[in-house]
Formats: sequence, structure tokens, C-alpha cells
Amino acid sequence: MRLFSFDNCPSVVSCASVAGGTEQQGPLSSFFDITENDTKFGLDTWEKAESRMIELCISLSLKKAGLSAQEIDLAFAGDLMNQCTASNFAFRGRDLPFCGLYGACSTFAESLGLAALAVDSGKADRTLSLASSHFCTAERQYRYPLEYGNQRTPASQTTVTGAGCVILGRGGPDAVCISEFLPGRIVDLSAKDMNNMGAAMAPAALDTLLRYQKETCTDFSRFDGIFTGDLGAEGLKMLRILAEEKGLSLPSSLGDCGLLIYDRARQDVHAGGSGAGCSASVFCGYLYSKLQTGEWNDILLIGTGALMSPATALQKETIPAIAHLVRIRRL
Amino acid sequence: MRLFSFDNCPSVVSCASVAGGTEQQGPLSSFFDITENDTKFGLDTWEKAESRMIELCISLSLKKAGLSAQEIDLAFAGDLMNQCTASNFAFRGRDLPFCGLYGACSTFAESLGLAALAVDSGKADRTLSLASSHFCTAERQYRYPLEYGNQRTPASQTTVTGAGCVILGRGGPDAVCISEFLPGRIVDLSAKDMNNMGAAMAPAALDTLLRYQKETCTDFSRFDGIFTGDLGAEGLKMLRILAEEKGLSLPSSLGDCGLLIYDRARQDVHAGGSGAGCSASVFCGYLYSKLQTGEWNDILLIGTGALMSPATALQKETIPAIAHLVRIRRL
Repeated sequence: MRLFSFDNCPSVVSCASVAGGTEQQGPLSSFFDITENDTKFGLDTWEKAESRMIELCISLSLKKAGLSAQEIDLAFAGDLMNQCTASNFAFRGRDLPFCGLYGACSTFAESLGLAALAVDSGKADRTLSLASSHFCTAERQYRYPLEYGNQRTPASQTTVTGAGCVILGRGGPDAVCISEFLPGRIVDLSAKDMNNMGAAMAPAALDTLLRYQKETCTDFSRFDGIFTGDLGAEGLKMLRILAEEKGLSLPSSLGDCGLLIYDRARQDVHAGGSGAGCSASVFCGYLYSKLQTGEWNDILLIGTGALMSPATALQKETIPAIAHLVRIRRL
Repeated sequence: MRLFSFDNCPSVVSCASVAGGTEQQGPLSSFFDITENDTKFGLDTWEKAESRMIELCISLSLKKAGLSAQEIDLAFAGDLMNQCTASNFAFRGRDLPFCGLYGACSTFAESLGLAALAVDSGKADRTLSLASSHFCTAERQYRYPLEYGNQRTPASQTTVTGAGCVILGRGGPDAVCISEFLPGRIVDLSAKDMNNMGAAMAPAALDTLLRYQKETCTDFSRFDGIFTGDLGAEGLKMLRILAEEKGLSLPSSLGDCGLLIYDRARQDVHAGGSGAGCSASVFCGYLYSKLQTGEWNDILLIGTGALMSPATALQKETIPAIAHLVRIRRL
């Protein structure tokens, strides 16, 4: 039983999303709850700003749900900063039992899947799932300090400044449910280019899609949309090529959160968006609204994550990747 | 419902532990399955050596259980390296659905609690929980490259080179069950000394013990043992002082994995052991054997974690901490 099918309708109670200035100028701007042009959110470091985004997401999702922190039984969260300090610092002092996750950019789908398991089991009444990333904290940690002004390659992606938070509970009529969770396996086809994360992650997305098809015998055309987390232009192209090689037919509704969040023709974002906050903010801001209004009824979100570090890159290691799938349905 | 009580007896199928040379010279040496004096485990980097310990743990726990990887429905793992690469690299290419965790030194208890939830829910038949740390990878990441030979303060702890892995399934007679899981909250009493992790973590351990007592009205003297993960000598002393201030009576059976693993009178380990691999290897090597033989029937493991990073320390931040509690009973 590697596909987790949930019978008790773990459902979205509320969603909140926060995004930065580049995302504000993108096509999804009107879907985010809060956008902020100041990369430091009025604080003195980018690291504090990332924690601030998380704090805003927690407060707003609780407010929308009409809940207090005491009514949340378990929170799952993670980010890209070393030791996940953006999340850890944002949750300190709060009355929120906390499980820290690290799945790189796949963290949001992982948090949604585990939170759904906790609610479905009947052991938790309400859970909170969250992920974030910040362009400036990620650039200086993974690449170069921004002050260097280094050139970026065409295949490189732009880390999204954003966060998304979902509160799950048990749903009633019209509920938007997490109906399935397929945790990914770690796949490594020996990609080595830290500036082409999409190429490293596409094989993991394919592995998860193939496993999902094998488990469910589902025709992917039945979904209103299938969204990878942050493959970007390069990775999505590669996923289509790899899928074709395996005889897997992927429908035209296949999209990518990293491509939805920016307008690549107009914005200087290279191959598109990436980061743990990419799928989190796009789901909480945009995808959920399509499900809530009934425009869509059944989608797949496939959170993709590249699991290297700057140290492993210096040690000439290849880049392992993972992809977690969650199915989200409107009843 | 913030205390997760498991009704379906998620039970230990097998345990495996691997430890390094300093641990081999300690009092628990004979309890570890594998010990290795070579800090690089025959490989060319310490980082690869840490992944190798994890690989050995996975293989051995599967072998002891008579299971193949295909029979494990979900694995939870984490470590202390940036981006959790020790675990991510060890799991690549394996047929093991994987959820990455980051809870610093509390990761093992977190992985055990979440794995128990998955088995208890009936959604997973068998799970794997794992955590690791390595003295040399941790020292150069968190403190100084070992070649500097820097002096350590008396309150500092020694990162355990070790890993531990538990396979859970549904138990029969004589099973050793994970019966309860109380996820911790992130507590920050403004400790700032990176060389005294015990002081930062003791308030989190107290918070969890107080919450457990409130939820269960349990007298702590009923347990055969209560083991914190890695408070060390300083932290354990502080926990007793803080508990007394709150009127909480802690029994003499209170111990700490970081104190059990070394002989401080004989070994130059300062305040004791620490690291995600500390509680993992001590549980899988020592604590579990006491439960398995029936010498003990009911214990608490309280995984403690300090959630700062070198970057947050440089930014003059305080040190948040967390403590996850799991209760382990022999039926």
C-alpha cells in the first residue's frame, strides 16, 4: 500500500499565500493574499523577512478559518534555508505542535500529504501545512551573494519569494479534499548542473507519474490539471520527452507552478520559478481558488525537489531528486 | 487531540544501529550492530561515510526483518547536514518512498512518531524510521574544520557518529509498540551559546513533559525509564532545575542518551553526546534491547533538537528548540 488513499475526506479549511515583488508583477498577482515589494518586509535581514512571510501565512490562514492556534493539532513545515531556520524561527513561541520537513522544493506537497494522513486517521482534527522560499536567502546560500551580480545561465530558474499555508480539517459538502498521496522515491540520473534543476527533477516527476499510473490505472486526461512544482521550462520539456520514451501520454493540461507564476516573455526569470514557496504560493493563491469556485474538480500537484547542497556540488556529486504527488478533489 | 495515542499497535519489527570509533570505546559498544574506527568508513569523504552508515542501517534492518525494500511502504529520515544530504544521498536509487525530515537532533523521535501514525492508520503496512549524525561532518559545518584543532568549552557536547533505523509493522504478542506520540512545540528562552546546546534544549524538553503530564495525568515514576535525546550533563541538570521550579517531580529513572553513550570520566567528550544519530543509535542499540528482553516494559524517549544554524548565530539570533516524545511499550 504505497498509495495513500484517504477515505475520511481531509479537506481544505483555509489557504493563505504571501509573495514578493517579482511575483506581484507576474500573472498570478491578484490571487495572492499579500504581496510585498520590499525584499526585507521592513526588517533588517532577508532571513527575518522569510520568517515574516511564514508568520503572515499562519496568522492569515487561522483568521480565514476562524480558528486559534490551540485548535490546530499538528503543523508540518519546511523551507530551503540551512537547518530550515525560516520555519523554525517563525514557529517559535507558538502553541503549535510542529514537525519539521526537508524535501527541498517538494516540501509543500510532502506537508500536504502527511497532514492529510494525520487528519484522515482521525488522530488530528486540524492540521497546518506550510512551505516557503525567498529569492535573496536562497541565492546567497546556494549560489552567490546578490552583490556579486553574477550572470545566470538560460536554464537556471528564479527562486520564488513566497509562502503558502493550508489548514486541513474534515470536510462537508463542497469540500476540497486531499484524496490521495503518493510519496516519491529518490531518483538520480546523474545530472550535475546546479543551474539546471529542471533536468535533475524531471526524472523524479516521471518516476512518480509512472508509479501513480501503475497503482491507479488512471488516464491522466481525466484531470482538470496536472501541475508539477517547479520543473520550469527546461524540466517540463524534459519530462515530456522522457514520458514519451516510456510510452506515457501526458495531457495538454500538464503545467508547472514555476511557469504559471511568472510571465517569461516579460519578466527576466530565465527558465521560470522554483523554490519551496513556488508550489506553496501557487497552490494556495491560484490552484485552490479554481477548485473552490468549482471551475476545476480534480487536479494533481506533483511537488518536485532537487536534493543536493552546495557542499555535495563542490564534492562533484550528482543531484538526487524527488517528486511527491497529491490529488486534490472537489466533492 | 494533540497527543497521538495509537490503538493498532505499531510495533518494532527490527532495529539496526551503526556507530563510530569514539562510540565503540564507550559503555554501549556491545549493543551496536556495527562499529567502525575509520571515520571515513573506507570512503574518501566524511559526508560519504555518513551516507554509508545510513545505507548499512537500512540493509541490516531489512535483513533482520527478512524484508525487501519493496515491502516498506514509507520511510522517514533526516540528519544534520545542510539540505539533509546524508539521508538524501543514501536513499537515492532505492525502491523506498521517502519523506525527508528536519528536526535537528530530535529527528529520530519525530520519524518514529510519524511512522507509527502511518502504520496505526492502516495506510502503511510497514515503515522505516532513521536518523544519523557524524562528528566530522557536523564539526566542520557547525563549528570549525577539524584541522583547526580549536578548543571546546566544558558545556559543549560531542556529536555522535552514529545512525539508527527502526522498521515498524503491526505487532503480535510480545510486540514492542509505539503507543503514544506527542509532537513538540518550538520553545525559545533566549539561550544564545552555540557551545551549550543543552541549555537551549532543556526548556523544550520541560515543555513537552509538562504537556504530556497535562494530557495523560501520568505519574512519571511508572516508567522504567525516561530518556531525553541529547541534553548532556548541562542540559539534564538544567531540566531538573526547571522542572523543580514548575513543581514537576522527575524520577531517578530520568536519563539522557548523550550521557549513556560515553563514559565522561574516561572519554574526552565534555558534556556528553549529541546529534541526530545519538538518540537513534542509543535507541536502536541499547534501549530497544532492554524492551525486547523484557527487562523494561514501558519507556519514554524525548528527542531534543536545537534549531539554530551557523547563519542565525552570526545574525545574533537566539536558539529555538523542540522536543518530541514517543512512548514505547512492551505488550
